Amino acid sequence: MSDIKKVVLAYSGGLDTSVIVRWLQDTYGCEVVTFTADIGQGEEVEPARAKAEALGVKEIYIDDLREEFVRDFVFPMFRANTIYEGEYLLGTSIARPLIAKRLIEIANETGADAISHGATGKGNDQVRFELGAYALMPGIQVIAPWREWDLNSREKLMKYCEEHSIPVDFSSSKKKSPYSMDANLLHISYEGGILEEPWAEAEEDMWRWSVSPEAAPDQPTYITLQFEKGDPVAIDGERMSPATLLEKLNKLGGANGIGRLDIVENRYVGMKSRGCYETPGGTILLKAHRAIESITLDREVAHLKDELMPRYAQLIYNGYWWSPERRMLQAAIDDSQSVVNGEVRLKLYKGSVTAVGRRSADSLFDERIATFEDDAGAYDQKDAEGFIKLNALRLRIAAGKGRELT
Amino acid sequence: MSDIKKVVLAYSGGLDTSVIVRWLQDTYGCEVVTFTADIGQGEEVEPARAKAEALGVKEIYIDDLREEFVRDFVFPMFRANTIYEGEYLLGTSIARPLIAKRLIEIANETGADAISHGATGKGNDQVRFELGAYALMPGIQVIAPWREWDLNSREKLMKYCEEHSIPVDFSSSKKKSPYSMDANLLHISYEGGILEEPWAEAEEDMWRWSVSPEAAPDQPTYITLQFEKGDPVAIDGERMSPATLLEKLNKLGGANGIGRLDIVENRYVGMKSRGCYETPGGTILLKAHRAIESITLDREVAHLKDELMPRYAQLIYNGYWWSPERRMLQAAIDDSQSVVNGEVRLKLYKGSVTAVGRRSADSLFDERIATFEDDAGAYDQKDAEGFIKLNALRLRIAAGKGRELT
Amino acid sequence: MSDIKKVVLAYSGGLDTSVIVRWLQDTYGCEVVTFTADIGQGEEVEPARAKAEALGVKEIYIDDLREEFVRDFVFPMFRANTIYEGEYLLGTSIARPLIAKRLIEIANETGADAISHGATGKGNDQVRFELGAYALMPGIQVIAPWREWDLNSREKLMKYCEEHSIPVDFSSSKKKSPYSMDANLLHISYEGGILEEPWAEAEEDMWRWSVSPEAAPDQPTYITLQFEKGDPVAIDGERMSPATLLEKLNKLGGANGIGRLDIVENRYVGMKSRGCYETPGGTILLKAHRAIESITLDREVAHLKDELMPRYAQLIYNGYWWSPERRMLQAAIDDSQSVVNGEVRLKLYKGSVTAVGRRSADSLFDERIATFEDDAGAYDQKDAEGFIKLNALRLRIAAGKGRELT
Amino acid sequence: MSDIKKVVLAYSGGLDTSVIVRWLQDTYGCEVVTFTADIGQGEEVEPARAKAEALGVKEIYIDDLREEFVRDFVFPMFRANTIYEGEYLLGTSIARPLIAKRLIEIANETGADAISHGATGKGNDQVRFELGAYALMPGIQVIAPWREWDLNSREKLMKYCEEHSIPVDFSSSKKKSPYSMDANLLHISYEGGILEEPWAEAEEDMWRWSVSPEAAPDQPTYITLQFEKGDPVAIDGERMSPATLLEKLNKLGGANGIGRLDIVENRYVGMKSRGCYETPGGTILLKAHRAIESITLDREVAHLKDELMPRYAQLIYNGYWWSPERRMLQAAIDDSQSVVNGEVRLKLYKGSVTAVGRRSADSLFDERIATFEDDAGAYDQKDAEGFIKLNALRLRIAAGKGRELT
Repeated sequence: MSDIKKVVLAYSGGLDTSVIVRWLQDTYGCEVVTFTADIGQGEEVEPARAKAEALGVKEIYIDDLREEFVRDFVFPMFRANTIYEGEYLLGTSIARPLIAKRLIEIANETGADAISHGATGKGNDQVRFELGAYALMPGIQVIAPWREWDLNSREKLMKYCEEHSIPVDFSSSKKKSPYSMDANLLHISYEGGILEEPWAEAEEDMWRWSVSPEAAPDQPTYITLQFEKGDPVAIDGERMSPATLLEKLNKLGGANGIGRLDIVENRYVGMKSRGCYETPGGTILLKAHRAIESITLDREVAHLKDELMPRYAQLIYNGYWWSPERRMLQAAIDDSQSVVNGEVRLKLYKGSVTAVGRRSADSLFDERIATFEDDAGAYDQKDAEGFIKLNALRLRIAAGKGRELT
Repeated sequence: MSDIKKVVLAYSGGLDTSVIVRWLQDTYGCEVVTFTADIGQGEEVEPARAKAEALGVKEIYIDDLREEFVRDFVFPMFRANTIYEGEYLLGTSIARPLIAKRLIEIANETGADAISHGATGKGNDQVRFELGAYALMPGIQVIAPWREWDLNSREKLMKYCEEHSIPVDFSSSKKKSPYSMDANLLHISYEGGILEEPWAEAEEDMWRWSVSPEAAPDQPTYITLQFEKGDPVAIDGERMSPATLLEKLNKLGGANGIGRLDIVENRYVGMKSRGCYETPGGTILLKAHRAIESITLDREVAHLKDELMPRYAQLIYNGYWWSPERRMLQAAIDDSQSVVNGEVRLKLYKGSVTAVGRRSADSLFDERIATFEDDAGAYDQKDAEGFIKLNALRLRIAAGKGRELT
Repeated sequence: MSDIKKVVLAYSGGLDTSVIVRWLQDTYGCEVVTFTADIGQGEEVEPARAKAEALGVKEIYIDDLREEFVRDFVFPMFRANTIYEGEYLLGTSIARPLIAKRLIEIANETGADAISHGATGKGNDQVRFELGAYALMPGIQVIAPWREWDLNSREKLMKYCEEHSIPVDFSSSKKKSPYSMDANLLHISYEGGILEEPWAEAEEDMWRWSVSPEAAPDQPTYITLQFEKGDPVAIDGERMSPATLLEKLNKLGGANGIGRLDIVENRYVGMKSRGCYETPGGTILLKAHRAIESITLDREVAHLKDELMPRYAQLIYNGYWWSPERRMLQAAIDDSQSVVNGEVRLKLYKGSVTAVGRRSADSLFDERIATFEDDAGAYDQKDAEGFIKLNALRLRIAAGKGRELT
Repeated sequence: MSDIKKVVLAYSGGLDTSVIVRWLQDTYGCEVVTFTADIGQGEEVEPARAKAEALGVKEIYIDDLREEFVRDFVFPMFRANTIYEGEYLLGTSIARPLIAKRLIEIANETGADAISHGATGKGNDQVRFELGAYALMPGIQVIAPWREWDLNSREKLMKYCEEHSIPVDFSSSKKKSPYSMDANLLHISYEGGILEEPWAEAEEDMWRWSVSPEAAPDQPTYITLQFEKGDPVAIDGERMSPATLLEKLNKLGGANGIGRLDIVENRYVGMKSRGCYETPGGTILLKAHRAIESITLDREVAHLKDELMPRYAQLIYNGYWWSPERRMLQAAIDDSQSVVNGEVRLKLYKGSVTAVGRRSADSLFDERIATFEDDAGAYDQKDAEGFIKLNALRLRIAAGKGRELT
């Protein structure tokens, strides 16, 4: 344990990671560099500076990563209409590779030989942090205190604080919730507490980002979302930066009760776990992206994307953002998006979002052909006969030889 | 054209297919057998008898296929959580193979040498009817009047009626709608009219099966749906036949504004088309099926199903229900469903359906392992280190050799 | 038929396409532009000029497309280790998109409004030519004489020649074979004749490009093939252009009895057909490409490529080279190839090709870790326990709940 | 370590596993049950009895599992035309789940609470054994001596033998090879030694099961292989049991130099490793199985199988035979095989195997349609026009809107 000289810690400023600072100093006799990022979790990050200083930390990094997060991670992921297990929008998963990347950058800048984080040994986040770190800096060492120490209860943590003079008000307010929570610009998540019983309904006062559908306005809200190359760039004609736009969508969605999710998901480490999520802006964005793709993407490209998507979602969920296979899939996905331009009109109402209109200079919708009216020869209905006959040929030959289909 | 002696026609009793009866008699000089099925479209089928008799039809088949439709087609499809292009629940597509099957059975019973239908040459339904027919009876002939005749406008059709003494009240009431509609126990669809402009919002009075979310009750409705082997068998503890259950879900969904959909889809014949759908019961069923699977299915089985699903959906959409590849995929899907048993509690509210609880004797959710509390050794957090290290090994080797990931 | 003014014909100079020239002139009263390409079929293309002139053709295109063919079509395809139905190296399929592209370029240059080709209505080639043409020039008209005329036997063709004064020596020598043949730099194919009986063994004298394994030298030939970015660039240290390199591989393979194939394949138009192929160079190239990838590609990238490959092969076989979905897959494939550099040593012997050595500056093979000997701590065997334990967790939970696996 | 009372050891009778017997007895103070299986490795298994007895083992299991191995593992795998990474026939991988299954059966019979094996911590076999064991008996404990002890060199092992009076002639003859070898009825494998340098060609005297292609007979051998439901049942008309048949194919293949393979593969534990394999019978079987499928399988079924195969191969390679996802894929594969009946005629010659004929009562090859001659109307070439036109429609619409494909 003596050969670690300096460790970069993903530091929230909360109780747990403050304990980790001290524990690392004591256990490894090493210097600790703290890294605190604003990725839109909705809490001030600047207070982490004083707390770190109080713990004797000399190198303190506090970064606003919101734009990078949305531009380089969230939006590329939404280009694929990514959903894990049919439901989950990967709000936690997609933030981890960015944190891993910054941890390694800081390790390089500060000459640290290790990184550390506050994720437990049961969850996905440890995997995501560490796979990313190893992929970006193969010789890095990783210290995961929750897998090493024996402070595995709140009481032991508090006792440790006392013994090591760690001010208990380091405990952030959010930790008083009965739930384990995580938030960033894409979502907020809830686990633990009564959610550990999958039959129990989540309590209304758990949700923080959205009003309940019941409490949402009685009148729908309409917005128009504009896309360029698969990414949203403007709301109701107003161009915004990625983070600003997602924040605005979160407000619109939250106000209309949109984006709540309650699921049981399969973790990469092998267990099922119950999670509740609020992803207001992401839920709107997914619907809108599919709608703009519906008129601009070629059919076979769209289908291929749908077939690749579950794999892509698994990669991100499992922590393989920083992998050559994710990059390879991204190359295919991005190749499809140059034509995904245009506008989608959306109706937000009491928990649901509906695409009610879509238009694009790149539209492949051809009203002359699609029409139920006379199409003036744009489409020759007689072609359908040959189309069907040859598509049926293999089936007819088989049936002719007595093949059964049941 | 002279060698067709008897043709079985999928006959709705409406204007179009009544014209087809006469047109077949005149054009092919053949006998017409009519087949009218109740698949839950919500219209009486018995009146078709008198209409067919008036047209001189001697062999008239009127079948109630509702239970078979839901049991053998809808439910097997939902076992796969089937969605086409991320949105469409395949309400029209899944009814066609049943019609094709009955057409062929009746052709066999009556010694007919051809079948006929009223689908146009631009749509998917012609393909679905004909692929099914050819697959089940390879020597059958198919007459698709809309691809052959020149009655390609309402005016010409009406004129034909006049000239051939077809009573115009044959025109069913639903045809007075500006939309082309199709309905069965799973859904009702709308195409044409102003929908041909993808930017135009569907008018509120178009929708027939559901109240608008705005008009839905201000209080949520809770129901519990019970599954056995992947199929729903009871609502709130009351066992029902498949068709009864789906009908009940339709009522519950419709009353809560659930299941409206407005999309642009890619037809198999090569064009994009706008469609609006109401699938109230199916929307509830999909959500519930995913929820019961979330606690009973193995992770890798669930992921494999998700990866196969788009292909399976394409097969059904394109008309390949009666094909060996659909059967092969079904074998895999069905193999996964023996453990999909249990109950899902659902909240229906103003257009959205949420799974709020799920439980099962076959649950794989293991609260002892998943807990954030002390798990008494059920899970050894130290295992995670080796897990991550070996999963990272290939990435570390590559990074160690200088591979870049961006 | 009168509205075609000028048609570009893919003209081989042989009997069939010479008849087509005249038939087009007579039937459509249009001007015919001939296009003859050298894609390595092993016959002089220049004689086609005099033949076309004799038929009154004024615009005659004769192109040497060998380098473009190999560089832009064959090599990109081999980057994916492409095989159709587990056996076929797509020698015919991959030449068609290039022909389609040139036909359209020439149509643009000459102001033609149609293209024509000599492929029959039963085969894949008509599909490949026409899909490519439509994709590149949507308004183009296509004339496929074999689907239109009634010259469906050799006798009728000869009679037509007589009546229209077409010199019968236009019939190319290769047409005297009992087989229908096609050749280019990648392969030569044989269909028809006794091959129409799948139980009959192909006769030894059918094969033209390779000696029989029995007749091949009794000593193996060793070569070293060098790759850059997934493409072969040198043989035994000598750099060559793409076409030169493939030609050289064909010679080496042919002399060693390599690359014969005898299969029954599934055509896109719905029937099974027997084909025999000689692909000497391609067979060597495939083996070598897999070998260089085996040490340079990441595991998951390699597996993803293997899973995508059958789809990619189907696209090419079915004629969708010029499609957005092929381009999308190509983007993923090409993304993987920047690291596919290095050398493969191959043993060629009496019909088989074996990779006996492979090395690369980009190798991911890490002998320190892979060794059976003491690895000095490069790999911690204890990591394997956690790796296995967590990978087994879902299986153990399921088994603990009584799940059966048989 | 004290709580293990009885352990079932996969015991070869060789030096390594004999040391393990003693080490287990000493380290865990537990009883050891030995299990030795004949899976066709070509060595007597009965001598293991005396050796185990000499080590004080009281419960000794010696089983002939050859028929079960081929019938229930090898043949089901070949139904999928399974190849890992384009080359490897999974000869080692497919034997492990059977051993795991018997270890657990014996643990149940003898009341053992643990299993043990002699696989190292770097390889795939530990994973395959242990995943299987955990999946079949979730509470089982696993002892993997190579991951625990410090006997990590031949010298230390020999010293241990001396100190613990283990007769050194326990060392089996095969261990004198410079290679690490493994054999069963499907193949023999070689790793280590000079093979750890991927550029080095394997030495001729390494290979044990096959003559070199150079040394094989100068005359080809022809055989006919008969299939029922996808499995081979007879050679040249003589019905044989599965193990007998595979043994016979091994002899035929080996005598003709067939089935040698030299590859670098990607292990599940994250490293690349060089392996050489001889799979004479399997190589013949794969070729023959594809050939019989080529005339009996529907095209889309065949393509779906090809797309699923790499995933299925990975499952087996990685040790997930005993998993619900493997069973799910198997259900799909097996569903396809009921029609895979008939005969394939094969030519074996100096290292290569060629299918020269195939026939079946279930053939879908329709010579009336496939013929180049007049087909008497079996196929209407005009159908191809509509087929192409509609398949091209989406491409034409896109091109018409200016979409580029390059």
